[in-house]
Amino acid sequence: MVHNFSAGPCILPQEVLDQASKSVKEFGGTGLSLIEMSHRSKPFVQVMDKARALVKELLNVPETHEVLFLQGGASLGFYTAAFNFLTENGKGSYHDSGTWSSKAIKEAKLLGDIEVVASGKESGYKDLITEYKLATDTDYFHFTSNNTIYGTQWKELPTTDCPLICDMSSDIFSREINVSDFALIYAGAQKNMGPAGTVLYIVEKDLLGKTGRKIPSYLDLEVHIDKDSMFNTPPVFAIYTSMLMLEWLKNLGGVKAIEEINNQKAELLYNEIDSNPLFEGYATKNSRSKMNVTFNLTDASLEEKFNKMWTDANISGIKGHRSVGGYRASIYNALPLSSVQALVNVMKELATVAV
Amino acid sequence: MVHNFSAGPCILPQEVLDQASKSVKEFGGTGLSLIEMSHRSKPFVQVMDKARALVKELLNVPETHEVLFLQGGASLGFYTAAFNFLTENGKGSYHDSGTWSSKAIKEAKLLGDIEVVASGKESGYKDLITEYKLATDTDYFHFTSNNTIYGTQWKELPTTDCPLICDMSSDIFSREINVSDFALIYAGAQKNMGPAGTVLYIVEKDLLGKTGRKIPSYLDLEVHIDKDSMFNTPPVFAIYTSMLMLEWLKNLGGVKAIEEINNQKAELLYNEIDSNPLFEGYATKNSRSKMNVTFNLTDASLEEKFNKMWTDANISGIKGHRSVGGYRASIYNALPLSSVQALVNVMKELATVAV
Repeated sequence: MVHNFSAGPCILPQEVLDQASKSVKEFGGTGLSLIEMSHRSKPFVQVMDKARALVKELLNVPETHEVLFLQGGASLGFYTAAFNFLTENGKGSYHDSGTWSSKAIKEAKLLGDIEVVASGKESGYKDLITEYKLATDTDYFHFTSNNTIYGTQWKELPTTDCPLICDMSSDIFSREINVSDFALIYAGAQKNMGPAGTVLYIVEKDLLGKTGRKIPSYLDLEVHIDKDSMFNTPPVFAIYTSMLMLEWLKNLGGVKAIEEINNQKAELLYNEIDSNPLFEGYATKNSRSKMNVTFNLTDASLEEKFNKMWTDANISGIKGHRSVGGYRASIYNALPLSSVQALVNVMKELATVAV
Repeated sequence: MVHNFSAGPCILPQEVLDQASKSVKEFGGTGLSLIEMSHRSKPFVQVMDKARALVKELLNVPETHEVLFLQGGASLGFYTAAFNFLTENGKGSYHDSGTWSSKAIKEAKLLGDIEVVASGKESGYKDLITEYKLATDTDYFHFTSNNTIYGTQWKELPTTDCPLICDMSSDIFSREINVSDFALIYAGAQKNMGPAGTVLYIVEKDLLGKTGRKIPSYLDLEVHIDKDSMFNTPPVFAIYTSMLMLEWLKNLGGVKAIEEINNQKAELLYNEIDSNPLFEGYATKNSRSKMNVTFNLTDASLEEKFNKMWTDANISGIKGHRSVGGYRASIYNALPLSSVQALVNVMKELATVAV
């Protein structure tokens, strides 16, 4: 068995993979594959409805909000978010916690006046700055809840008087959140929700249509709501597999249950980093992510040895992002505690061997 | 066996479904599923490279052009096409052959001056108008090669002096084309190329970057070319399955070979429509599509009987689009001649029973 610490696309539960694989061959007694039937057919409409309903159930989404499964990843989401919430001649406020926030800022700037109210850039994004001041006339505040590259995460999510927008791609469904605090949450599927190829939007309906802009149809969240997330042919396989993943989470006890497991996994790994003199964490302690654990060897000469040891232990995907280096263990929902234990065992073993 | 005439997503070859299903369980001896590994991993980079190379090989794509697999369907493509080719203060010329062209026109109008040079609207889009005049100062000419809803298709594709843009979603890979005639071809995968969830762009590189516009990153074809179609996490499963489908086409003899089979299928079905007094075609003869065959009963009272007969014969997906009514048999690349024969047999049988 491979211990899959990939940062995304990432590990999915075996039962999800088995069922997805089966449905590509034949789906629900139709005699057809899931991927060769019309998206307007009853079996697929049921899949879409169920996927949206599961999101609502698992996150306690209030009636004020709607759930959509679209395409283009968070990368298109950066632009879509601004297009739907930045008024003509208005202002958007952004928190910069690294690569993904910076990209969100870049796309939003194409549409208007964007203010960066806090940035961790000077610390190499090791710190996630939680002190900032919002202009009273801002249209919205945008932040990234978890930074996969630097391994930082908001411990407590901010609340605001203005509409709050969050790119939650890498930690949605990992912990309980209060959806009613948000005007918009968007999240690429390929971490805790499913395979690559779809992006989730949870949006407060009454806040849409107020920018004074003519929005292109595919970027207009109102258009997608009107069409029940079927404005055009949806990414059938990615949505179906996300539905399976959400079912898996529900059967496991929901977000509250997985949050406890995620806490255990993070604690186990950070404890080893902090107690083992051969390792040090990258992110500052109070900014640490429970999804992406970034760390370095304190003695670079041990690199080759360590790399061989974890490779031999069937551990995969812990090389750090090219912009940071070192190591990054992504411990998303589907990664079992036993895989974290396997990594910790190798770290302990290195300490023995290196003495 | 189901005879799957779905208009899209549509029938895929069994060997493609089998291999895709297998790879969702385990991919290429990696011990991981295709959908739980990093898109930057060697195995997936090879998939992406191979998919792009197969498009180039099968369509004889010249060195001047590049191939991309993106997201958002042709629906986002309508806007993307205009954003990359319509200069500020410039003009785009559009041919209107129905629903899809109309949508392309609508999105382009958000960016500038759009002229509709011909429209089949007055005839209920039964006719595909091939006479039109382009303004000498137009930035480009846009057309839809095949209309799935009305069942019309350009017999001979137009050529122009200005850049030529085509939405080829529903007939790409069905017949030989001359890619060098086009500035841009875009096509949703879910007819002849694969499952829903990715859209193919074939674009002439030197024509990009000339509009004077700041293009949002996800809509900027130059950005995607610079990143080898990996600007952001790609829709892994949809691209992999498209690659399998392109391999299937290559093994079958390529586009020239499938074109001959497609001609046989279309001839068989249209011959029946024309010789059987119980049926009449919807599209005018010289506008008929070889991908989507639209037809009606001449005697509406036979509807119930006919519907039962084709259902009993395991025929699926031939109800016409809600905006046209009647019947539509979509006979894309993966639909075998034997399925067309099964439908023709039912049509002949109806003639016997109805006498």
